[in-house]
Amino acid sequence: MVIRTGPVTIPTAVIKRLPMYYRYLADLDRKGISRISSRELSQIMDITSSQLRQDLSYFGEFGQQGFGYRVEDLYGAICTIIGIENIYPTVLIGAGNLGKAIAKYPGFRRRGIELVGIFDLPDKAGEEIEGIPVYPVNILQSFLLENIVRLGIITTPAESAQQLANELVKGGVSGIWNFAPIPVFVPDDVVAENIHIGDSLLSLLFKIKHKENNELAPN
Amino acid sequence: MVIRTGPVTIPTAVIKRLPMYYRYLADLDRKGISRISSRELSQIMDITSSQLRQDLSYFGEFGQQGFGYRVEDLYGAICTIIGIENIYPTVLIGAGNLGKAIAKYPGFRRRGIELVGIFDLPDKAGEEIEGIPVYPVNILQSFLLENIVRLGIITTPAESAQQLANELVKGGVSGIWNFAPIPVFVPDDVVAENIHIGDSLLSLLFKIKHKENNELAPN
Repeated sequence: MVIRTGPVTIPTAVIKRLPMYYRYLADLDRKGISRISSRELSQIMDITSSQLRQDLSYFGEFGQQGFGYRVEDLYGAICTIIGIENIYPTVLIGAGNLGKAIAKYPGFRRRGIELVGIFDLPDKAGEEIEGIPVYPVNILQSFLLENIVRLGIITTPAESAQQLANELVKGGVSGIWNFAPIPVFVPDDVVAENIHIGDSLLSLLFKIKHKENNELAPN
Repeated sequence: MVIRTGPVTIPTAVIKRLPMYYRYLADLDRKGISRISSRELSQIMDITSSQLRQDLSYFGEFGQQGFGYRVEDLYGAICTIIGIENIYPTVLIGAGNLGKAIAKYPGFRRRGIELVGIFDLPDKAGEEIEGIPVYPVNILQSFLLENIVRLGIITTPAESAQQLANELVKGGVSGIWNFAPIPVFVPDDVVAENIHIGDSLLSLLFKIKHKENNELAPN
C-alpha cells in the first residue's frame, strides 16, 4: 500500500466523495469487517467499481487483485488524506441551539476537533457546554492571541457572521466552518466552508415535486 | 418568459445548483434589485455566463438580449420549479438542540414548511417549541392517521432513525429530511434527503491540509 503524499491535482468531484468514503469505511471498521472487495465496497456506496478504483488511484495504490482492500488500511489512508490525524483546537461562536447541538456532535473528537472555547453575547457567558466555558465574544480577539486556535465555527445570525470571520482570520485560524445563513469571505490562505442547511431542504422539495413526472436523471 | 412545466430530464448537476439560484435570487429580491444581467448574476454566483444560461434553459426561456433578467420573474420561476409555492405540513421528530434549532430556522416558512407537530420521548412531551406542542413519539402513528402530513424531519440518534422513517412512510409522507448520522432508506415513491453535517467538516479539514500543496483543482 502506497499513500500518495506528493503534489497531485485532485478533481473537485473526487474531493466531494471523500467524506462518503470516510463514513462508509469508518462504519465497516467499527463493525470489525477487515477485508472488502472493490465490488462489495462500490455496491454499498452505490457507485461503480471503476469509479471506486479511479477515485482511489488519486491517493495511492490500494488493494490487491483477488484479495480486495484491507478496511483498516484504506480507512487509515482516507483519514490521512483528509487530514484527520491532526488535532484542531477549535472555537465555537454562538451558544444557541445549533451551537449546542454542534458542541455535542459525537463525531467531533474522532475527526480531530478539540473545542477550546465557546463565545456568545455577554449574557450567556459563564455557562458551560460539554464542560467548555462560554466566554463573552468581546474577548475573542485576546483569546485568539493567547491560545493556538486552528478552526472557528460560526453559528450566529447572518448579521454578525462576516465580522466574526474577520476576527477569526486576524486571530490566525486556518479554517472557518460557517453555519450562518450567509456565506463568509476569507483571504486566499484561509479556507471557509459555508454550510447551507436549507439547501438540502430545497433539494428534497424539488425531488418531491418532480418525482411523479420522471423528470429526474439517474445519478 | 416561459416556465417549462412538461417532462424534461434535468441533469443532477443542475438540480444541485437550484438551491444556490434560490438563495441568490431571494437575496436580490429582498434587496429590491429588479433587473440583473446574466454577466452580473453569473459573477456573484461564481459560475460562467454560459453555464448560467445553460442551467436556466432547462427550466424555460428567461431574459431578453440586452435587457437581462427580471429578478422577480426569475425568482418566482425558481420557486415554482423547486415547488416552494406549495405548503408542506410537517412533523419534526427529536426535540433536542438540533430539533429546536431547526424548528426555529427562519427560512422555514418562506420555503412552505408548516410545522404541525413535534415528537420526542414521553418525558419531553408537554413542552412547546415555537408554539408547537411536543407529543410523545408513541402517538406518532395515530397522529399521522388523523392529520395530513407531507414531510417528516428526523433529528434523533442513529439507532431510532430507520424505524421512525418506516413509521413516517406508513403514515403517508412524501419526503423525509434526515439529520440522524446514518442514512434512512425509503420506498421508491418517497424521497429521503440524508444530510450529513459532518461531511462539510471533512471537506474543510481536507482543504486546510491540501491548500499549501496546491493540490486542489479549480472548481
